[in-house]
Amino acid sequence: MPGNFATIAVLGRAGDPQIAATLTRLLGQLRAAHATALVDAALAPLLGHPSDAQLADHLRLAAAAELAIVIGGDGTLLKAAHVFNSRPVPLVGINLGRLGFLTDISPDSMDTDIAAILRGEYRADRRVLLEAEIAHAAQTTACVPALNDVVIQKTDGGRLIEFETYVDGQFVCAHRADGLIVATPTGSTAYALSGGGSILHPALDAMILVPICPHALGDRPIVLGGGSRVEIAISQTHGGRAQATSDGQHMQILNAGDRIRVWRADRAVTFIHPHGHDYFRILRTKLHWGPGLTRSDNE
Amino acid sequence: MPGNFATIAVLGRAGDPQIAATLTRLLGQLRAAHATALVDAALAPLLGHPSDAQLADHLRLAAAAELAIVIGGDGTLLKAAHVFNSRPVPLVGINLGRLGFLTDISPDSMDTDIAAILRGEYRADRRVLLEAEIAHAAQTTACVPALNDVVIQKTDGGRLIEFETYVDGQFVCAHRADGLIVATPTGSTAYALSGGGSILHPALDAMILVPICPHALGDRPIVLGGGSRVEIAISQTHGGRAQATSDGQHMQILNAGDRIRVWRADRAVTFIHPHGHDYFRILRTKLHWGPGLTRSDNE
Amino acid sequence: MPGNFATIAVLGRAGDPQIAATLTRLLGQLRAAHATALVDAALAPLLGHPSDAQLADHLRLAAAAELAIVIGGDGTLLKAAHVFNSRPVPLVGINLGRLGFLTDISPDSMDTDIAAILRGEYRADRRVLLEAEIAHAAQTTACVPALNDVVIQKTDGGRLIEFETYVDGQFVCAHRADGLIVATPTGSTAYALSGGGSILHPALDAMILVPICPHALGDRPIVLGGGSRVEIAISQTHGGRAQATSDGQHMQILNAGDRIRVWRADRAVTFIHPHGHDYFRILRTKLHWGPGLTRSDNE
Amino acid sequence: MPGNFATIAVLGRAGDPQIAATLTRLLGQLRAAHATALVDAALAPLLGHPSDAQLADHLRLAAAAELAIVIGGDGTLLKAAHVFNSRPVPLVGINLGRLGFLTDISPDSMDTDIAAILRGEYRADRRVLLEAEIAHAAQTTACVPALNDVVIQKTDGGRLIEFETYVDGQFVCAHRADGLIVATPTGSTAYALSGGGSILHPALDAMILVPICPHALGDRPIVLGGGSRVEIAISQTHGGRAQATSDGQHMQILNAGDRIRVWRADRAVTFIHPHGHDYFRILRTKLHWGPGLTRSDNE
Repeated sequence: MPGNFATIAVLGRAGDPQIAATLTRLLGQLRAAHATALVDAALAPLLGHPSDAQLADHLRLAAAAELAIVIGGDGTLLKAAHVFNSRPVPLVGINLGRLGFLTDISPDSMDTDIAAILRGEYRADRRVLLEAEIAHAAQTTACVPALNDVVIQKTDGGRLIEFETYVDGQFVCAHRADGLIVATPTGSTAYALSGGGSILHPALDAMILVPICPHALGDRPIVLGGGSRVEIAISQTHGGRAQATSDGQHMQILNAGDRIRVWRADRAVTFIHPHGHDYFRILRTKLHWGPGLTRSDNE
Repeated sequence: MPGNFATIAVLGRAGDPQIAATLTRLLGQLRAAHATALVDAALAPLLGHPSDAQLADHLRLAAAAELAIVIGGDGTLLKAAHVFNSRPVPLVGINLGRLGFLTDISPDSMDTDIAAILRGEYRADRRVLLEAEIAHAAQTTACVPALNDVVIQKTDGGRLIEFETYVDGQFVCAHRADGLIVATPTGSTAYALSGGGSILHPALDAMILVPICPHALGDRPIVLGGGSRVEIAISQTHGGRAQATSDGQHMQILNAGDRIRVWRADRAVTFIHPHGHDYFRILRTKLHWGPGLTRSDNE
Repeated sequence: MPGNFATIAVLGRAGDPQIAATLTRLLGQLRAAHATALVDAALAPLLGHPSDAQLADHLRLAAAAELAIVIGGDGTLLKAAHVFNSRPVPLVGINLGRLGFLTDISPDSMDTDIAAILRGEYRADRRVLLEAEIAHAAQTTACVPALNDVVIQKTDGGRLIEFETYVDGQFVCAHRADGLIVATPTGSTAYALSGGGSILHPALDAMILVPICPHALGDRPIVLGGGSRVEIAISQTHGGRAQATSDGQHMQILNAGDRIRVWRADRAVTFIHPHGHDYFRILRTKLHWGPGLTRSDNE
Repeated sequence: MPGNFATIAVLGRAGDPQIAATLTRLLGQLRAAHATALVDAALAPLLGHPSDAQLADHLRLAAAAELAIVIGGDGTLLKAAHVFNSRPVPLVGINLGRLGFLTDISPDSMDTDIAAILRGEYRADRRVLLEAEIAHAAQTTACVPALNDVVIQKTDGGRLIEFETYVDGQFVCAHRADGLIVATPTGSTAYALSGGGSILHPALDAMILVPICPHALGDRPIVLGGGSRVEIAISQTHGGRAQATSDGQHMQILNAGDRIRVWRADRAVTFIHPHGHDYFRILRTKLHWGPGLTRSDNE
């Protein structure tokens, strides 16, 4: 990836006044670096008046940007990544003072880190996406790609759902559970982790299936190769409804008989980090690893 | 509890033809024993024609029965228990050939076991109930008592909910999770077990709080004394909705600001088992304990 | 418990120079309050020279003290509690700057908190103990009481052990595992928590059995009433050895055929806390509950 | 792999009279098929007298065999695989009537399945091995390769051990735990599963690190690419001892300062299965997946 980014999309957590100061500083920095900044029109209310910032809608951002800088948390970066589904635009995340798994540049180090990135000094971090489609009767619906996970889940609190899983056409298991998470390595530290899944290193070409609150205690998470095709067949929803979501966004209501197919997308998303980025350091910080003691029997 | 049960309610899994033969045999046995059987009207389609069985609706069953015999699984017994919310009628469960946690009489041993129970030879197994109420703005709604659990839970698949827990007025924790299970010892082998909770022996005067897929890995289940009053305050539902259920039945949609209070009911439910009933044997069977080996490194 | 403590044992983490300054301050405070301090002789090297502190061995401490103040972490307090196995001396824990589950007085608040306790303003926190005995052939060995847990465990890394559990004479389960933890509510936040057990509120009269890395995935922790008698019969050690420990201290090597019996002791240990002590606040701090976010999909 | 196996090693669970009949039948079948059978000398006591079976020690078996047939469970097959560490001899496992993860041919289907394999009709199942070495002061000890796992673990029951992990030279985490399991996909259904790890599909080029009873609740299993080099540095053993094992066999006592390095071996082990072998079917059977219900709230 070449170092020079002439046109830069700037996105952020819309409606959050906390990002205003960082946004203004960032735009100043980009102007000083002679880069063209296109600001997500949703951020207009956060810009000072008058502002000479160039606003753009998502279509325009996706068409023109060579780099996207996103101010907010991991969730904001996740949403921003979906803006660029049509073109492989690398993304940089600036957090709001709390380290994220993906947003590892703090407002404090932003000046230095963004300057380095604009000079072409950075580390590219390629993350796979999952594609999914839902077959309902004779009709098949394609879904937006997921960076974290495709999830099927009961939506009415009362009862579990029943479904079968298949990998590359081979029957795996009949599950009775609240749902199933199909997660990328990126998503393995998100919902899948809460469901009891193991962490997948981002460089691993794999996906993990995590049943949610399964009925059978032996129904445990399975890690599959990235080239696997997963199919989930809804058997029974017990009078309730099931739902499919992609990165936490609603895709479709599911009925008995529907089939959801999930596979690794051909394209991927690239995040850009400053040199010195350390995946394990982020894990240590986010998961409270290290000297922080929790059990009550130590000295 | 006196041994002689003159009027006996008979309930079962409505609409399941599998129970018809057992039902007919049971009615014959009760007739031979000179007991009055009142059959849940919902079972009428399963009775032979003509049948001299005396049908009754739930109100009548609850008013007249001294004992209830229920044919089905644990779920059926659970529902039947709610028919007798107004009067402490002991319940006997006959399973459909697969041992239940509560329905421990098999069709094979039914003749002997029911005869013994009618003679007054049995073991009473008292199980506590949870009561709950929901405070929404100025209005408070009482809920049906729960034998297994009171659960609050997100109902739209995408996002977690945020809530705070209090025990006896003391703040416990701010949770970010899919929900929270408040379970009795009876319910500790149901949904709470899938959520990672420990099993509570039925004789223990306790309840267990089990967060569902909690965001924080340290947010673990807590066992409290049976006399505790639990309060859950919904903080944030992230544009989705939350729901409260009692024994898996919908109670109410929850919004931010709603408070759910849960405590042990004054009254309890009594299940009746044949002598020789063994709680641990049931656990061993249901949870596949014992010689069944699962790991791959043994001889 | 009367407020005035005339003779006070002072113990601490022997050999740790970090406690010296706090120790000296504490002795000055006790002197000023006209209390008699008996200092654990093991702390002599930490006292300044010359020192007029009155040293005493553990027997003397146990015989004379009306209160024990312990400087260190939870582990140090645990060991100190065992010094007073023969007499019910209440204990106060002063931590070394990091909150403990039991040692909740910080060096910063020590002056105020200890003064209040000496005035009789405190909260007593009664914690149960477990007693254990090991039956080997014709011989039975009594064990020191445990405040946290009695554990049986393989000691040679390679293989699991096999054992059976009984509660009040009733067979529970044949386990294949690395071992079994029998924990008090106090111990439920120690080793038992790492083994997957639920937290037991300290006011709950209960104990928890937690199998360690069990072979069968259904072999889950069980919470029993405090009055239960647990028996563990070692079936097979696969050429390795098993070991019993009490609060992490070695008790005895175990062979196939040995039986370990565990029950709640008649006596208990009393910890003393300043008013304002809050069990749930300590859980929140130690288990990283609260605003600290861990999953990667939130804003 | 060519279909015709002229010289076949036969091994089994030594000293187990249960295998005698299957062994005799197998030798008859091989004789009829004009294959040369070399029987592990350790099985001599199980052969009838007189027997014309050709006995051989492990060195001879390893030098001459083109195929090894092993009668016993997964543990027996695991040990047999180590006999052929010097040459890539494919292995077939015949179980003793209970399906194993690796020993999927039952005595009932042996005649048909072995005949098919001898005709060259089979499915080869390649499984990776882990190599390990232990650096102690200036000395480095190589370890036997592991098919399941390399484990470091405390050996004295009382206290946890402290160690640091590194992947490809990068610091991962400082752990306080009973130990750490480094498992292959094959080992992911063994000890690693009991420790809370996810299942790794055998075709996945990966390994999993599973901390055993970790102190910190966020210290979760991590899946790494198969090409990763893992290093574990023992920091502190708290007066106890630690131990390294390979496939459950003792390798070496570990002290603070020792470093254990683990990586995927260049060579692999090949298991041979009859056509129709189904990995997921074995998982379903061994982990009690499927219609077996465990929770207590279902019908």
